[in-house]
Amino acid sequence: MTRIFDDPADFADDQLAGFLDLYTDRVRGVPGGVVSYRTGTPQVGVVIGGGSGHYPAFCGTVGPGFATGAVVGNIFTSPWAAPAYSVGKAADQGKGVIFSFGNYAGDVMNFGIAAERLRAEGIDTRIVIVTDDVASAEEQEKRRGIAGDFTVFKVMGAAAAEGVGIDEVERLGRAANAATRTLGVAFSGATLPGEDEPLFTVPDGHLGLGLGIHGEPGIRDVAMLPARELADLLVDEVLKNAPPGAGRRIGTILNGLGTTKYEELFLLWGHVASRLRDAGYEVVDPEVGELVTSLDMGGCSLTLMWLDDELDPLWRADAYTPAYRKAAAPVAELRAPTADEEAEADAVVTAPEATDAARNLATTVRASLDVMATVLTDNEHELGRIDAVAGDGDHGRGMLKGITAAVDRVGAQGDQVGGAWRLARAGQAWAERAGGTSGVLWGAALESFGRALGDSAQDYPAAEVTRGVRAFADAIVELGGAKLGDKTLLDALLPFVDELEARVGDGEELAPAWRAAASVATAAGKATSDMRPRIGRARPLAEKSVGTPDAGATSMALIVTAVGSVLEGK
Amino acid sequence: MTRIFDDPADFADDQLAGFLDLYTDRVRGVPGGVVSYRTGTPQVGVVIGGGSGHYPAFCGTVGPGFATGAVVGNIFTSPWAAPAYSVGKAADQGKGVIFSFGNYAGDVMNFGIAAERLRAEGIDTRIVIVTDDVASAEEQEKRRGIAGDFTVFKVMGAAAAEGVGIDEVERLGRAANAATRTLGVAFSGATLPGEDEPLFTVPDGHLGLGLGIHGEPGIRDVAMLPARELADLLVDEVLKNAPPGAGRRIGTILNGLGTTKYEELFLLWGHVASRLRDAGYEVVDPEVGELVTSLDMGGCSLTLMWLDDELDPLWRADAYTPAYRKAAAPVAELRAPTADEEAEADAVVTAPEATDAARNLATTVRASLDVMATVLTDNEHELGRIDAVAGDGDHGRGMLKGITAAVDRVGAQGDQVGGAWRLARAGQAWAERAGGTSGVLWGAALESFGRALGDSAQDYPAAEVTRGVRAFADAIVELGGAKLGDKTLLDALLPFVDELEARVGDGEELAPAWRAAASVATAAGKATSDMRPRIGRARPLAEKSVGTPDAGATSMALIVTAVGSVLEGK
Repeated sequence: MTRIFDDPADFADDQLAGFLDLYTDRVRGVPGGVVSYRTGTPQVGVVIGGGSGHYPAFCGTVGPGFATGAVVGNIFTSPWAAPAYSVGKAADQGKGVIFSFGNYAGDVMNFGIAAERLRAEGIDTRIVIVTDDVASAEEQEKRRGIAGDFTVFKVMGAAAAEGVGIDEVERLGRAANAATRTLGVAFSGATLPGEDEPLFTVPDGHLGLGLGIHGEPGIRDVAMLPARELADLLVDEVLKNAPPGAGRRIGTILNGLGTTKYEELFLLWGHVASRLRDAGYEVVDPEVGELVTSLDMGGCSLTLMWLDDELDPLWRADAYTPAYRKAAAPVAELRAPTADEEAEADAVVTAPEATDAARNLATTVRASLDVMATVLTDNEHELGRIDAVAGDGDHGRGMLKGITAAVDRVGAQGDQVGGAWRLARAGQAWAERAGGTSGVLWGAALESFGRALGDSAQDYPAAEVTRGVRAFADAIVELGGAKLGDKTLLDALLPFVDELEARVGDGEELAPAWRAAASVATAAGKATSDMRPRIGRARPLAEKSVGTPDAGATSMALIVTAVGSVLEGK
Repeated sequence: MTRIFDDPADFADDQLAGFLDLYTDRVRGVPGGVVSYRTGTPQVGVVIGGGSGHYPAFCGTVGPGFATGAVVGNIFTSPWAAPAYSVGKAADQGKGVIFSFGNYAGDVMNFGIAAERLRAEGIDTRIVIVTDDVASAEEQEKRRGIAGDFTVFKVMGAAAAEGVGIDEVERLGRAANAATRTLGVAFSGATLPGEDEPLFTVPDGHLGLGLGIHGEPGIRDVAMLPARELADLLVDEVLKNAPPGAGRRIGTILNGLGTTKYEELFLLWGHVASRLRDAGYEVVDPEVGELVTSLDMGGCSLTLMWLDDELDPLWRADAYTPAYRKAAAPVAELRAPTADEEAEADAVVTAPEATDAARNLATTVRASLDVMATVLTDNEHELGRIDAVAGDGDHGRGMLKGITAAVDRVGAQGDQVGGAWRLARAGQAWAERAGGTSGVLWGAALESFGRALGDSAQDYPAAEVTRGVRAFADAIVELGGAKLGDKTLLDALLPFVDELEARVGDGEELAPAWRAAASVATAAGKATSDMRPRIGRARPLAEKSVGTPDAGATSMALIVTAVGSVLEGK
């Protein structure tokens, strides 16, 4: 609902006044709209426009690399010819003016009249009409203009900024329009300032396929879809309407109409992007956000512009406007860490001197990691299956990724390192590669284990190892936020550590104490079947998990059992 | 309402996956969040975070000149310690890490644990808590963090990008927080993915003063205010809470919470800016838009950061992140037009000499415009309703704006002008103010009417007035591009003119002929119910309009009927 206004009748003028105040350092108001301050070099004027209520369309994209001026009509209403004339005249820098706008009768008429008047005054004036909405008509020239405004204006703005002449800017604008297709869906209507009811509605639990940005009827109402299916629908319908001779490079916009928010658009984008890539498209500089809105309307649209060698650089070009700012340089300066750099970082930190006892310990650590890798490989699918009952089913894979990274890192170490150092480095590799919370926890726990031991001891008696195991568990308790009974790996781990501490405290040798504690862990892991998860899962899933043990507790039991066999020398 | 998702339980992860796909050229995902790719020079890591659902907070502001990493929690839920630890570790470039987040118990605890763990691993880790919400507590250290997150993070990001050490970045962050105050208002609650009802509500027709971004209680509910009073309330309350020793330079944010849109924020900004300037403040680089949101929550907040010589350049500094991009250079290249360029002669057009007959005609014109204003005021909502069936619903409003402008212009004229001049000026005023297609047509038609008559005649017999009416109609035919049967105002106007011409041609007096023609117009206007619009509307919409008369034809019939009463002397 639109809530902030004084006199609703003055809404469009009042909001424009605030906009002009805010961006007074880069645009100026003229009767009927906004014109960008100029750069040193005269360029073709690209004057866009239409009704208000669509911000950033239209005045939000006035600036270097984009539009030269914007005509600002009333809310959802085409501006009259006089403001178009006034903005066009102010935007002319002696190289002519191109009016560009979505295909609505009022705009066509009014910009047309304005163009005639400007021509009569000797200003070369052209018109490029945007017709991207595939839902509105079969023939492209009869279609409405919606978010495809953005691609067409962007191409012309970039061409004009390069100093190209008016014939060429017009030609490129027409080429951009011919290459652009959009389909939108609406979830809910927009409310005009001062009104209590929306201007139009969409039936509850439905989406209006192809509904226009002012509520113009679309193709049909469809029952609301999950995001993945919505992405399929949008992609399929737009691709079905691809222009003749379309290639495989596409500029892409996923546009929010007002109350469909960024998180929703990102979520949808994930599906749209993979769907487009699966179909063999190269997605060039996608834009996901609010570019052409309709006040508080709910919905979104997908725009594709098929790029050739001419349109491609214009779509990618820099721009700097109030609402749209793009620059290649800051991104070009950034770099992802390469595998070499990660390895390099490892090499920089050298292992401390290790005692003989610490080097012996390192042998046990390596053997333990190796059996962990074996047991996790053998059980990958079963762990995945258990996890899928009430989770995302990736536990087996995540653990395998972690242990593999740990084993690889350890394999790259020389034989002179101590066991504590080895454990800590294994933990770092695990955390970096495994992903997910359990990867973080396992990594941190292994690091803690190592740090608790150190590589300077002359001996690593059972009590010392047990202290390391407790540090391992403490890290998970601390970082994980779970406690006993929450149906997590702690439900196997804590009984294991308690049992180990008790037995070692009573003077038992490490190997038999570990073996007994591992049995406790195995039983405790199985007993998690009866539990309801208390963190990290939605309630319906929590119920669903009853009857299945926790995947993390299960893998923990498998691991301590396997390590027990190493300690026993088996 | 939140509509786009697959499994609501996976919403936060799924939207993050889409975000990472979109910005894969500048950020990388790590367990629990996002880290910026690095520039060449290592810098202090500024790691921000909190729950999801607040985009651009928090991952939208990761990038050069702003945050180094963001921890991404579940929707409206503090992240656990493990992800905070994981992101902090990945963001460390060897110069230490600062965790910064809004003051919520869960965040304080979990970031605290993560910081302890990082310190244990030798990473210098600091914490800067944001406490800007003046509505939440008296003492600043007990206050919640809301949109002031943005100023505090920005200052630290800028300082870190300059290569400053961790002590200094921490100190500047604390200084920024100490200098920042925010007050928010809520109009409506946010809906979690998968839920049908909002998480919290605001009573209808009210605003929640100081209501938190997750619905935490505010100061009180207040009856909804006009924009100007809302601006006063926000400015007064924030200024009342100015920090000790506050100066006159302020960085400013007017933040939209999700469904309060740009146009509304610009409108409000106009009032906020003038109020701040009137109070003697220098507003530095204001930001108006969506910076810290709450899904589809309605509302806004005003943040002021009092600047000193230290904070000022950090607030102004360049940044380049997915959602926030700022560069001084492109604006510095622009220049306002010079006085010469600006000089646009507003030719003062004086009214021509008018005969007595023309001055008499002017009286009738004024009376006619007055009754038009009355009938359009009385029918504004009904015309809007009719128009909304298959149009944008603004016909009533547009006509009222036009006639009001015309009446005002006429009211400013002396008594010595002729009726033709008066009609022409009324038409210009109408066109300038009404906007939209019907504004163009009405304005141009009234101008043509006046031009056809002239103010030099000694008499204005019925045949002469009828000629003027025909010129009025011709202008609409010419400019509008519609014809009879297209379901436009012509379907009332042309039968009216035909009838009037026929009767006057047969020697009937103007008043009865006009009255009879108005009856024809009324019947013809009603008969447009059966028609399908043939221009100005998308084809699917045309079908929907069948059964409802055309709004333009309806208002035309109302107007000629009302003017008829003037001619009859009623």
